[in-house]
Amino acid sequence: MGDVKKVVLAYSGGLDTSVILKWLQEAYGCEVVTFTADLGQGEELEPARRKAEMLGIKPENIYIEDLREDFVRDYVFPMFRANALYEGLYLLGTSIARPLISRRQIEIARETGADAVAHGATGKGNDQVRFELAYYALNPDIRVIAPWREWDLNSRTKLIDFAEKHQIPIAKDKRGEAPFSVDANLLHISAEGKVLEDPWEEPQEYVYSRSVSPEEAPDQPTYIEIEFETGDPVAIDGQRLSPAALLTELNRLGGANGIGRLDLVENRFVGMKSRGVYETPGGTVLLAAHRGIEQLTLDRGAAHLKDEVMPRYAELIYNGFWYSPEREMLQALIDRSQEHVNGTVRLKLYKGSATVVGRKSPDSLYSLAHVTFEEDAVYDQRDAEGFIKLNALRLRLLKRGQEHG
Amino acid sequence: MGDVKKVVLAYSGGLDTSVILKWLQEAYGCEVVTFTADLGQGEELEPARRKAEMLGIKPENIYIEDLREDFVRDYVFPMFRANALYEGLYLLGTSIARPLISRRQIEIARETGADAVAHGATGKGNDQVRFELAYYALNPDIRVIAPWREWDLNSRTKLIDFAEKHQIPIAKDKRGEAPFSVDANLLHISAEGKVLEDPWEEPQEYVYSRSVSPEEAPDQPTYIEIEFETGDPVAIDGQRLSPAALLTELNRLGGANGIGRLDLVENRFVGMKSRGVYETPGGTVLLAAHRGIEQLTLDRGAAHLKDEVMPRYAELIYNGFWYSPEREMLQALIDRSQEHVNGTVRLKLYKGSATVVGRKSPDSLYSLAHVTFEEDAVYDQRDAEGFIKLNALRLRLLKRGQEHG
Amino acid sequence: MGDVKKVVLAYSGGLDTSVILKWLQEAYGCEVVTFTADLGQGEELEPARRKAEMLGIKPENIYIEDLREDFVRDYVFPMFRANALYEGLYLLGTSIARPLISRRQIEIARETGADAVAHGATGKGNDQVRFELAYYALNPDIRVIAPWREWDLNSRTKLIDFAEKHQIPIAKDKRGEAPFSVDANLLHISAEGKVLEDPWEEPQEYVYSRSVSPEEAPDQPTYIEIEFETGDPVAIDGQRLSPAALLTELNRLGGANGIGRLDLVENRFVGMKSRGVYETPGGTVLLAAHRGIEQLTLDRGAAHLKDEVMPRYAELIYNGFWYSPEREMLQALIDRSQEHVNGTVRLKLYKGSATVVGRKSPDSLYSLAHVTFEEDAVYDQRDAEGFIKLNALRLRLLKRGQEHG
Amino acid sequence: MGDVKKVVLAYSGGLDTSVILKWLQEAYGCEVVTFTADLGQGEELEPARRKAEMLGIKPENIYIEDLREDFVRDYVFPMFRANALYEGLYLLGTSIARPLISRRQIEIARETGADAVAHGATGKGNDQVRFELAYYALNPDIRVIAPWREWDLNSRTKLIDFAEKHQIPIAKDKRGEAPFSVDANLLHISAEGKVLEDPWEEPQEYVYSRSVSPEEAPDQPTYIEIEFETGDPVAIDGQRLSPAALLTELNRLGGANGIGRLDLVENRFVGMKSRGVYETPGGTVLLAAHRGIEQLTLDRGAAHLKDEVMPRYAELIYNGFWYSPEREMLQALIDRSQEHVNGTVRLKLYKGSATVVGRKSPDSLYSLAHVTFEEDAVYDQRDAEGFIKLNALRLRLLKRGQEHG
Repeated sequence: MGDVKKVVLAYSGGLDTSVILKWLQEAYGCEVVTFTADLGQGEELEPARRKAEMLGIKPENIYIEDLREDFVRDYVFPMFRANALYEGLYLLGTSIARPLISRRQIEIARETGADAVAHGATGKGNDQVRFELAYYALNPDIRVIAPWREWDLNSRTKLIDFAEKHQIPIAKDKRGEAPFSVDANLLHISAEGKVLEDPWEEPQEYVYSRSVSPEEAPDQPTYIEIEFETGDPVAIDGQRLSPAALLTELNRLGGANGIGRLDLVENRFVGMKSRGVYETPGGTVLLAAHRGIEQLTLDRGAAHLKDEVMPRYAELIYNGFWYSPEREMLQALIDRSQEHVNGTVRLKLYKGSATVVGRKSPDSLYSLAHVTFEEDAVYDQRDAEGFIKLNALRLRLLKRGQEHG
Repeated sequence: MGDVKKVVLAYSGGLDTSVILKWLQEAYGCEVVTFTADLGQGEELEPARRKAEMLGIKPENIYIEDLREDFVRDYVFPMFRANALYEGLYLLGTSIARPLISRRQIEIARETGADAVAHGATGKGNDQVRFELAYYALNPDIRVIAPWREWDLNSRTKLIDFAEKHQIPIAKDKRGEAPFSVDANLLHISAEGKVLEDPWEEPQEYVYSRSVSPEEAPDQPTYIEIEFETGDPVAIDGQRLSPAALLTELNRLGGANGIGRLDLVENRFVGMKSRGVYETPGGTVLLAAHRGIEQLTLDRGAAHLKDEVMPRYAELIYNGFWYSPEREMLQALIDRSQEHVNGTVRLKLYKGSATVVGRKSPDSLYSLAHVTFEEDAVYDQRDAEGFIKLNALRLRLLKRGQEHG
Repeated sequence: MGDVKKVVLAYSGGLDTSVILKWLQEAYGCEVVTFTADLGQGEELEPARRKAEMLGIKPENIYIEDLREDFVRDYVFPMFRANALYEGLYLLGTSIARPLISRRQIEIARETGADAVAHGATGKGNDQVRFELAYYALNPDIRVIAPWREWDLNSRTKLIDFAEKHQIPIAKDKRGEAPFSVDANLLHISAEGKVLEDPWEEPQEYVYSRSVSPEEAPDQPTYIEIEFETGDPVAIDGQRLSPAALLTELNRLGGANGIGRLDLVENRFVGMKSRGVYETPGGTVLLAAHRGIEQLTLDRGAAHLKDEVMPRYAELIYNGFWYSPEREMLQALIDRSQEHVNGTVRLKLYKGSATVVGRKSPDSLYSLAHVTFEEDAVYDQRDAEGFIKLNALRLRLLKRGQEHG
Repeated sequence: MGDVKKVVLAYSGGLDTSVILKWLQEAYGCEVVTFTADLGQGEELEPARRKAEMLGIKPENIYIEDLREDFVRDYVFPMFRANALYEGLYLLGTSIARPLISRRQIEIARETGADAVAHGATGKGNDQVRFELAYYALNPDIRVIAPWREWDLNSRTKLIDFAEKHQIPIAKDKRGEAPFSVDANLLHISAEGKVLEDPWEEPQEYVYSRSVSPEEAPDQPTYIEIEFETGDPVAIDGQRLSPAALLTELNRLGGANGIGRLDLVENRFVGMKSRGVYETPGGTVLLAAHRGIEQLTLDRGAAHLKDEVMPRYAELIYNGFWYSPEREMLQALIDRSQEHVNGTVRLKLYKGSATVVGRKSPDSLYSLAHVTFEEDAVYDQRDAEGFIKLNALRLRLLKRGQEHG
């Protein structure tokens, strides 16, 4: 298995990564550094510390960090500037969290002199790719350990056996197979696998945990106003909030109104289709609002160019290429467009829908003088004739060429 | 004004195009052929015939046609194969109707020996461009008359005066200014202008006519199944329907559930921003369903390529370039992808949302064998290591180059 | 090594693939079918037959085919319709040959009941990817054997030892290391490795074999005319030629004039940069000529759309995705544009350059009446004012918004 | 004609703009400010001053400026970072000069309190669009005068008559029609019209003025080395040069070797095709060199993204949208990629060709260790199997779906 001295493990404190922790110690005979991050998944972190200690990790090797503000400010918001949607629908909630976790693992490896990093993603999914591309991009010489691709604990029974053998505590509800697997952070919560595997079957209500169903949402709409500065949201209903606090509040508002559920069959980077069920209440509201403020403040040329590169940008993030030159180049393009994306959007939240019903901006490019049907000084309707004629010229020459050719 | 002998006018039977009809006779001293098409706007056509006769049009010069099936089959469905959205949100309901009207006008001009065509679009909007680009593309030598850009009837008062002077009947509710202007066909109904001009103000309920508000929609969801063949919908809940009948039924279902409303500030081709309010109940359901069946049946490479060219394709339609080589080239690309887009999608319609909750297909590319977490024969998890390592190679070399460079 | 019964080997008759042949028999204990294709590489095929027989291949298992016409007609010409260049410069001479060889291997496997295919490409290059992606795309259940990735004959010495041990004849000049490795077909000949590995060193003259150096080319230019029909060349100087005959003649003409040499550092799909030296005399002439005839016959919208998708199309071919839906979709787009690409191009060939100096076409869209500086009836210069004003409108509104905002 | 008080005219000192100068004074009764810029067109500027004075322009209204460094540094070099080619071939020599002239005109208008600007471009070409889009983008309220679209001096005879009537000196060779029209600056010289209007006829040698013909170029190649820093050339053969001095030297070297001639039929923005003959000796060398250094220093993802957006970027410049948000966004993307584009390229210049024959860089991403055929530690050939298998997975599932579907 090679000579690994110290490995930084992305550690959740759950059963799987606890098994990995123990397996790393055994299989590699190496020191393990655990890294547990609060990205808003909604779990206490201190139990992870106690569990790590219990599994023999030295206190100085236990890293527990609240990264919620970093996550939203440096990853979520830049991505939302692009109105990124993977395959037209998916808000990339899992994808966007991986680069931050990876970056911290690599930084901690440097700080602790570790020569390897490890993660708990399986060999069939996208997350292994996202983790590892980020690791390699940030430290080309790092050693990467992906236990799920290496070990033989490839069934629930073997995993439980290993845990019992090594005195790893097993929560009662973890003994059997979970009915589906979950990933959560401040942007979204996802569910996939097992009971969700038949794409013809509607997901049952118990799959959802961050939103009420539209049917259970209030019968009265909720109106909110979101304020933007240079493309990022900064306030809700006049109250300035930090990035993480703002997204938390949008999650609350969206979730209470049944907003942000998505049942999707998507194409994984590793080549297969999979079915995922996502809840992204705050993100769904934010996307609608951001498009709303851009409608008023973004020039057409800028807006259309953004729309054209967006699928590529989203694909890069989905595939794990956050730390690639091409993602950074597209980000430079996108950020360049957001300078004047300032103003306020009013939204109506109601039983599953987030609808923009108003927008205003000091940088508005909407000109009532130009758009009114009245005669006016700013726009000479006769200009349209020349505009159309020259736009049509090539088409006319083409038709003539084809007729006489 | 030049020597026009006969002009084919796109004639709705309403006040504005009746004034145009009379004005053409006067200003150009020419014979007028009226063309009135049923594209599903929901109005009787026979009154238009009577009105044209009353205004002195010879019976053989009155063309009244039901083009609903042509419209949906040859324009709407091809466009939906592309999942086309202009500026991320607009389903192009007005844009897609213009090419068909234009084509018939040019054909009727050929049949009747007319040397000109005329339309009732104003000099500030997109429709003049769409009509005229289509005219010129189909007949490069046609004479185009756009009365709104030529005459001096540029206020409501002057228009009414002209109508009265020429015994053009004026409906009572047309005397005053309309609170907004409307365009309708089987795909959508749009409203813009006047009371809608302030983008900060929420449109009032009376603006909408094709859908109930989400609040007024039933408290129980409606479930439907849509069947697709080679990318086009062919049946609802097992009942095969013609294209127009199918879209009509989707409008009914969507409208009854408050689906398809859009309040948008968009960028016109002529360079200004405008605010439009759209209702596209059936189209909104159809887009969701089409994406649903593509999720299951479209290869990733095909799907992503489609997504990347979509904004360009939508822009071409919005700008009026339906009859351009580049639109046709993109259509060839899109149609090539739809060969296996067959199957059934189940949707939940509820208070403004159309949600895909199931999809199945004989051509499904979703492989449960590949996606399951169990150990399996079809997918060797160790392949992922090589996949990741070679995808990472350039990033590692880059990082090294930058570190040592 | 698994249970392979019969394997179809892409067999050149050279030392490497002869060693592979023997190794397959030994390592897999399986029957070997050899497939040797004439793609215009300029070598006799009959020696390959004799060698295969000598190595124990049954006569009915020896496939030798002249595929030059298939190659040029079905692969080279379609690619040239796109003006494909990888990384701005490379005419994809090697890339485009692999899909045809792979297709025939899969077909022969079906005919002979073979359950596997094998190729002689190494584990670091693009060709392994191209071969295998094509194999899998055409037969998802085929077994693929890539000896260079499996065996331990990973040095010249071991390879020669194996050959000697198995009585494989070794040409004298194959004993030592070749100074560079070569791939050839009717489109190009490439050289890479060893003496070419330092990208700062100019390739020496002996590397080139299909063209004279520009310095040695004639001091007088050669003028030729190439005729096109629907985007493909069909005649040179008035003489109709089959696709392969035409490309052969262009190679002769281009090579004699020092045309088509390229010294390139390129990005491989497997993640590293490599240096290649290419000779593509006929292809270089053909690209210039095709662009020349498109200049006259292709509409601007079509031409620009083609240019925008070309890099993606070229990348797909380079990476081995010829048999992918997205390549086929792009091909449909490209082919749709070529309907009227008819006419004749005159070129000057001189000491390394192929220059278009004239083009004419019955489908020309070039209109002298429109382009002349004289006053004319077909173009009203005043139209330009409206055209410019409406194109400028959004930029003016933007500037105003930024100034007052 | 409206009330213009003061107009800034782009004044060359030639006959046409002298006539315009006089016509502006007459037709508009306004004060004229002349702006004459040295962009490297190769003409003395002082005669323009004297001529302006003679035509009654006040000394303080005569602006004569050497903008060569600004031109190359702020316009030419940024464009070359993109490897921009319009329609695959044209280096945009005229297009890139217009934004600088326009910007200075607008600045001078502000300084002098002028309310209008004027240019001498005709109503059929691209330059009117480029000038005016730039004017409007930089000052949305500026009044634009385009005499060629307004006056009736639309034949040579009328123009000469006007000149004689107003005592405008006429050079002998300007009395008759010029055999073609010319535009020149430090990047290129173009010729079009009259004797060049038949695209089947080869341009005669006298059309060219900045390069010898390849036939007349030296029989020995010239080797040069160009050094780059962050994407821009900074030295030739070890000698650091200012941007303008460097391009001047490249023009000398390229022109002496017959490099940079282009005979093109192109698509104008105003909708027609036209034929142009261009000489861009230094630019042609520079493009080859820049691609050469990028080959070594640019990551594949960055390089391919650049190639994909390039046609759009070139189109924007050709069409006159230099001062548009979308051009600036693309520039941000491109510039972001050039940080490590450092190093030296060696080129061979010979009878019309500029060929890269060597490149080296401290930031090279080319790794001999990775590319060598030998067994090595840095690259595990077995990784390729996984890489290929996962890239193939979707294609296999697709084929299976189609076979069993």
